[in-house]
Amino acid sequence: MSRYSVGFDFGTDSVRVVVVNVRTGHMPAQVVEPYAHGVIDRALPASGQTLPRDYALQHPQDWLDSAGGACRAAMNEAHVPAADVVGVGVAFTSCTMLPCLADGTPLCLLERFKNEPHAWPKLWKHHGAKAEADRINQVARERKEPWLARYGGTIGLEWFFPKVLETLNHEPGVYDTADVWLEAGDWFVWQLTSGPFPDCSTTKLVRSTCQAGYKAQWNAQSGYPSREFFTALHPKMGDVVEKKMCGAMKSPGASAGTLTERAAELLGLRAGIPVSAAIIDAHAGVPGAGVASPSTMVLVLGTSVCHMMNSRIEQLAPGIAGVVEDGILPGYYGYETGQASVGDAFAWLVDTFNLSHDVLSREAAKLPPGSGGVMALDWLNGCRTPLMDGNLSGAFVGITLSTTPAQMYRALIEATAFGLRWIVETLQQAGVPVRRFVASGGLPAKSPLLMQIYADVLNERIALAESDQSVSLGAAILGCLAAGEQVTGYAQASQAIHAMARQREDLLYRPDLQSRKVYDELYKVYRTLAESSGPLATSMRRLREVTTKSA
Amino acid sequence: MSRYSVGFDFGTDSVRVVVVNVRTGHMPAQVVEPYAHGVIDRALPASGQTLPRDYALQHPQDWLDSAGGACRAAMNEAHVPAADVVGVGVAFTSCTMLPCLADGTPLCLLERFKNEPHAWPKLWKHHGAKAEADRINQVARERKEPWLARYGGTIGLEWFFPKVLETLNHEPGVYDTADVWLEAGDWFVWQLTSGPFPDCSTTKLVRSTCQAGYKAQWNAQSGYPSREFFTALHPKMGDVVEKKMCGAMKSPGASAGTLTERAAELLGLRAGIPVSAAIIDAHAGVPGAGVASPSTMVLVLGTSVCHMMNSRIEQLAPGIAGVVEDGILPGYYGYETGQASVGDAFAWLVDTFNLSHDVLSREAAKLPPGSGGVMALDWLNGCRTPLMDGNLSGAFVGITLSTTPAQMYRALIEATAFGLRWIVETLQQAGVPVRRFVASGGLPAKSPLLMQIYADVLNERIALAESDQSVSLGAAILGCLAAGEQVTGYAQASQAIHAMARQREDLLYRPDLQSRKVYDELYKVYRTLAESSGPLATSMRRLREVTTKSA
Repeated sequence: MSRYSVGFDFGTDSVRVVVVNVRTGHMPAQVVEPYAHGVIDRALPASGQTLPRDYALQHPQDWLDSAGGACRAAMNEAHVPAADVVGVGVAFTSCTMLPCLADGTPLCLLERFKNEPHAWPKLWKHHGAKAEADRINQVARERKEPWLARYGGTIGLEWFFPKVLETLNHEPGVYDTADVWLEAGDWFVWQLTSGPFPDCSTTKLVRSTCQAGYKAQWNAQSGYPSREFFTALHPKMGDVVEKKMCGAMKSPGASAGTLTERAAELLGLRAGIPVSAAIIDAHAGVPGAGVASPSTMVLVLGTSVCHMMNSRIEQLAPGIAGVVEDGILPGYYGYETGQASVGDAFAWLVDTFNLSHDVLSREAAKLPPGSGGVMALDWLNGCRTPLMDGNLSGAFVGITLSTTPAQMYRALIEATAFGLRWIVETLQQAGVPVRRFVASGGLPAKSPLLMQIYADVLNERIALAESDQSVSLGAAILGCLAAGEQVTGYAQASQAIHAMARQREDLLYRPDLQSRKVYDELYKVYRTLAESSGPLATSMRRLREVTTKSA
Repeated sequence: MSRYSVGFDFGTDSVRVVVVNVRTGHMPAQVVEPYAHGVIDRALPASGQTLPRDYALQHPQDWLDSAGGACRAAMNEAHVPAADVVGVGVAFTSCTMLPCLADGTPLCLLERFKNEPHAWPKLWKHHGAKAEADRINQVARERKEPWLARYGGTIGLEWFFPKVLETLNHEPGVYDTADVWLEAGDWFVWQLTSGPFPDCSTTKLVRSTCQAGYKAQWNAQSGYPSREFFTALHPKMGDVVEKKMCGAMKSPGASAGTLTERAAELLGLRAGIPVSAAIIDAHAGVPGAGVASPSTMVLVLGTSVCHMMNSRIEQLAPGIAGVVEDGILPGYYGYETGQASVGDAFAWLVDTFNLSHDVLSREAAKLPPGSGGVMALDWLNGCRTPLMDGNLSGAFVGITLSTTPAQMYRALIEATAFGLRWIVETLQQAGVPVRRFVASGGLPAKSPLLMQIYADVLNERIALAESDQSVSLGAAILGCLAAGEQVTGYAQASQAIHAMARQREDLLYRPDLQSRKVYDELYKVYRTLAESSGPLATSMRRLREVTTKSA
């Protein structure tokens, strides 16, 4: 009898469900189901009340509905009997979070709150909490909070507590009513193991150490930030942890509970099978790319890029977005760094010039390193690692009367490669070794040019994840781990990872000696331009200030 | 009886001929005739021999043929009898120059030289003499040549002696054979008053103080650079001035001689009428815009921009491209500064985005000052004034995922306005007052948005030349001056200028108080970015170095 695990990958617009053989990694089915309401960024569903420009919300019922539809379809397509499925894993965008009652009911589904934007789940890219993030950073720096170093010295506006504080500042009634604030990934796992709502019990609530560690400043030794810190932030927030952050902490791959009868019915699975604690989607890409060992950086290349790496070493360095013990796989310090716009930046250029990726790629591939003298800064959505500054912006330098769109396109690719090299050097200079590179996500298959440029700029070989669905595969691997050794036979996480996922053997990008030399010179120029306190970055911040004020 | 003057405006691709009433400035005819060979930048006409990338040559016969055709057509169209034309004026691109025999024959028309690129006239924008310009600057600085200060400390690669030295370095046979090296404007005047070739006599050769002053380091007091300087430059060049630079120096508006029978026949005019000494095309725009008084800056706005101004004050300042006594009008120090790409930069954007000026202008006009956070550096063809550095390049800063082509278009316009303000401040800080602004050239009528932004950024009113052909009108005014008081009744240049040219009374651009305040802030950011020794400029130079070497 073959055994299977089911992986859920909740993205921004849809959920993907995969069914995976736990012995071979074979994936007989994968189904994508969009959310009925998609991203709610213009108006609330019920009243049509319009939203501020920076808002991005979601509908919690969409997650249940789409997951149910996709899972039933996938099981059907896979021709796998429900009895053969041994575990479930859940990867979710983060920090996507919501306020609930103690029975699991999202506040936005209550009649009295349906027109309150802050009662709705805030999607990871909701940017309404800028002022709150600034305030959190200011208070944390003033109080010299010890946890700040684990986040490179800066908390992002997309993270958990800025979003909570935003709600308290704007709609205190929502804040007061919430019994539980939690990550959407944790909410979904809770629905599977204790509900669905309104029957959840907070005694059965399990939170992921991954989400809590990377997005809510939680740490296994010290827990969440202190009561004193939260009081300094806002007098009403002093008891936020004890009152509204209940739940047991478990790491991804640990069982958060078993599937309830009603959840099993929703998904078309068997009640009683273990459900893994949730994981951030990008982080699931590490096991999903077949990477079980430390010092191998997994690049999840998409609209933005996450770089995940396990290490035996804990080193806190400025600009490194998150270092979390057991954050990705148990037994390691998980490092997360990021580039805020990569595929998005290429798409901007394609749209703006009204040309196709194919045409631009073909022309760009004919150009020598250096894009004929054009250099870009890849901060079209701000700089995540290492500067952690959303007020920075993109730039093109070296434009002449004969500059072509293909030059600008290649320059953008090269800029993201320089940005990546900077991140790797930041880690290495902090004493965190980076020895191997594995690329996954949507971009590598689409852009061999990008992969070659990355290899040349890094002067490193880059392997490719075999599966083009490493996130959902990673989620399925965690489902397998949650099922336990007695069922699967895997005593170690690495055994399951190596059995279910791997890198391609037929394709490896190797650095070209000549190109590498040119890129070494160009990288120096990039670093000069990218100097955080230099006139270019300073001018970007000032430009934003002046034109925001005058708009 | 009405009296008329004929003005020639030799541009890059064509010649324009206008017939102008010397009493009223009325222009009954204007005809444009393209050059048969246009700009020769790919292959030589005779052999098809390909040219290096930076070359831009012209065919001297084109100038005669097109001028003849256009002048005859214009006289025909104007219904003006040849007997009523009292003078001829000639404006020409500069430094466009060529080597000739003593009888006026261009060397490129000799069988033995027709395949030698350096025997051909080099157009102003020929960029083959970069190494030679560097060498001239180096030697001049080492020797502390006194004339260097009149050119802001730097000789341009488009100027006269770099092009001569380039020929000597590459084809010494051409250099040796040349009896005369001269500006194309002077050559054409010589053809009208002494030839056409092969019947010219060097005794009748008149050179313009304008071209010689701005492009060949000539000065009324000290003449050309010294024998010692030229010897230091190249042992064979010591006698270049005495051997190859013969000719009388006259200022624009002074008669260089009278039309020969054969030239009269070529043009359809009357033999014996005076021909003015030539003038650089942009400089003719000063009288052509109706400006006779000092401290009024005339902006000739086109693909590039020249700023011309007469002043009673001689002040030499770093970055000011040229200060020439009697260089524009007699009795004043003529200042010339420039921006190397303005209309060209907008055209680059229009072509690159494949959108129309109209669409972009309309969208850009809806944006607030600051282009929604995008700022450009307008150096797409290098920076002329004040940095005098052809290795600089353009840039866009502040690009985000929502940046539109219209934002980049407006940012380019704003960048050229900031560049203009920098030039005006450079003059003023050197002690040269700038009190009024008059715009001419093709752009003002096409872009009211540009004019308003210039007024806002300068915080000054800007008047518009009434004629949209101020260069050819200016040439005709000089033809009128050459005819002399006895014929025209004008004792002063200012009398002819005010009679024949003026500014529009129905349109004056006035600064907007709110916009001006924002632009004051943005201008500071521009200056930070544009800092010559700053990381952005340094990176631009380095980028060019690295990518040129590796290409």
